[in-house]
Amino acid sequence: MKTIRASIIGFGAVGQGVAEVLLQKDENLKNIGLDIKVVAVADSKGAAIDPNGVDLSKVLIKKRTEGTVGSEKLTGLEVITNIDHELVIETTPTDIDTGGVGLPNMLAAFEHGRDVVTSNKGPLALKYRELAEIAKENGSNFKFEATVGGAMPIINLIRDVLAGNDIISIEGILNGTCNYILTRMMEEQASYEQMLAESQELGIAETDPTYDVEGIDAACKLVILANSIFDMDATYKNVDVTGITKITPESLMLAQDDGFVVKLIGEVKKDLIRVGPRLVPVGHPLAVGGTLNVASVQTDLAGTVTITGRGAGSIETASAIISDVISIYR
Amino acid sequence: MKTIRASIIGFGAVGQGVAEVLLQKDENLKNIGLDIKVVAVADSKGAAIDPNGVDLSKVLIKKRTEGTVGSEKLTGLEVITNIDHELVIETTPTDIDTGGVGLPNMLAAFEHGRDVVTSNKGPLALKYRELAEIAKENGSNFKFEATVGGAMPIINLIRDVLAGNDIISIEGILNGTCNYILTRMMEEQASYEQMLAESQELGIAETDPTYDVEGIDAACKLVILANSIFDMDATYKNVDVTGITKITPESLMLAQDDGFVVKLIGEVKKDLIRVGPRLVPVGHPLAVGGTLNVASVQTDLAGTVTITGRGAGSIETASAIISDVISIYR
Repeated sequence: MKTIRASIIGFGAVGQGVAEVLLQKDENLKNIGLDIKVVAVADSKGAAIDPNGVDLSKVLIKKRTEGTVGSEKLTGLEVITNIDHELVIETTPTDIDTGGVGLPNMLAAFEHGRDVVTSNKGPLALKYRELAEIAKENGSNFKFEATVGGAMPIINLIRDVLAGNDIISIEGILNGTCNYILTRMMEEQASYEQMLAESQELGIAETDPTYDVEGIDAACKLVILANSIFDMDATYKNVDVTGITKITPESLMLAQDDGFVVKLIGEVKKDLIRVGPRLVPVGHPLAVGGTLNVASVQTDLAGTVTITGRGAGSIETASAIISDVISIYR
Repeated sequence: MKTIRASIIGFGAVGQGVAEVLLQKDENLKNIGLDIKVVAVADSKGAAIDPNGVDLSKVLIKKRTEGTVGSEKLTGLEVITNIDHELVIETTPTDIDTGGVGLPNMLAAFEHGRDVVTSNKGPLALKYRELAEIAKENGSNFKFEATVGGAMPIINLIRDVLAGNDIISIEGILNGTCNYILTRMMEEQASYEQMLAESQELGIAETDPTYDVEGIDAACKLVILANSIFDMDATYKNVDVTGITKITPESLMLAQDDGFVVKLIGEVKKDLIRVGPRLVPVGHPLAVGGTLNVASVQTDLAGTVTITGRGAGSIETASAIISDVISIYR
């Protein structure tokens, strides 16, 4: 049995999802030889620390009843710097302008030789190269499947399962909110504004939907794929971005008459990163509806391999994090 | 650099594809620290042996011009038994009644402590449990991604990328020939017989199409998934099988009017393995056309993840074999 001491930094939906999954899967993990002992949990207001293992059930209840995980006045960065552990699970919120607290958190983790598994897109969309290099210098593992497409496992699919293939391009639907709005506009012959309102009522779109509907979220995911799979040194500014706010139900109906659906497609290949609305033939593997995410990987040997899955959800994202954790230590 | 001495046993389309890919990817493999040295190639008529590495270019030419790889009068089994090497790449033809030569080949490989990577369904559909146990007893690796769906990497997706998830069910289109015939019947409003004839002309269906169109091939793949993913002890006889030969264009048109397509769907979950025609809604991730294969994996954490890819082709199948090889030795 290998014991891995871990911290969970950031305890919103994803961090709580990780705690729930660790509780639920404790026995399964031990069956494959892994004892993941969470020695610290930090949110923006405080921290819970226990070198013998934090009681995750209690922390989850405390968070939900008191709004914070604990009374220790340590920040996430202080936890990463001062508490002995091997693995930082970084689930603080994405900030694509500055990288947010995630950026110093990850840098500090690597400087202390700790491994990082994260769902936080911001630092990777801004400073991927720097992070990857510091990780390498310190012999740290750096895994981030959860940053792109939640439970649609595109990065590990390419790196592990399609090993041996050269990757020619990746294209797909990387934002479930846009996919939902476009799918519903087509089904109901309704306007963008109507279906945005519906998706906000359902909690699929946020009150300020800009980040999703203007294609920014998809663009950040493309940047992470460009840097990690194509070894580019791109940031958000390198992406040619068009969102879905100008699409009319009339254009969707015209497409439908010709056997097409309209999807917000992100695309990355050598020297090209772009996201915008595109026509996709009905029956094509990319023509999936609802909130699903999908990515097609064009390879030299295996041809085109397409993967579809739920792009969001706290447990789904936690699943991607746990798979990354297992892949490091198994 | 790790040197792995390998044999290629069986040198039809897939074995030749492996040789071509090893030639093409020699530098890429060395870049990740792997020197795969093929010390023996055997077909049904002879063998080429060289402890310093067989010249694969010459062997490919010899096979195509002379119909065999070499003049050494060794069988595949004798190569496996008598030649020092670590890895047996077993690509002899599938025989689901007896297991063919693949079965004694794999058993001998494990008894000599060699690893096996294979595309041969027969031995796994008949004797999976026995093979897996002998491999384990001898500390051998046993990988067989290429047996199910060619370049649609379902097994490694589940075992590696979705690690941590419990698998509830797998369902999908596991036979590209049936998918092609059904897709074309729908497009052309044509009969099964007409579209079978077309697919035979195109080389998609074989002269005797029974193995594909009666669902036997899909059933064998389901058995492999049942045994390897669900830890069942199933054989082909445990599968409830219906093929596509009784499907009429009229029934496809009725389905289409209601927004459905008809697909030959294989399904495996605890205590159930079956394959038969089913209605799938247009726009559903399983509703892919042409010769594509697709599989949806229902999990407890990640929800449903669907993977689509080319189910056949010598280079595609070789790609799955090379990915398995990399996953063992990297």
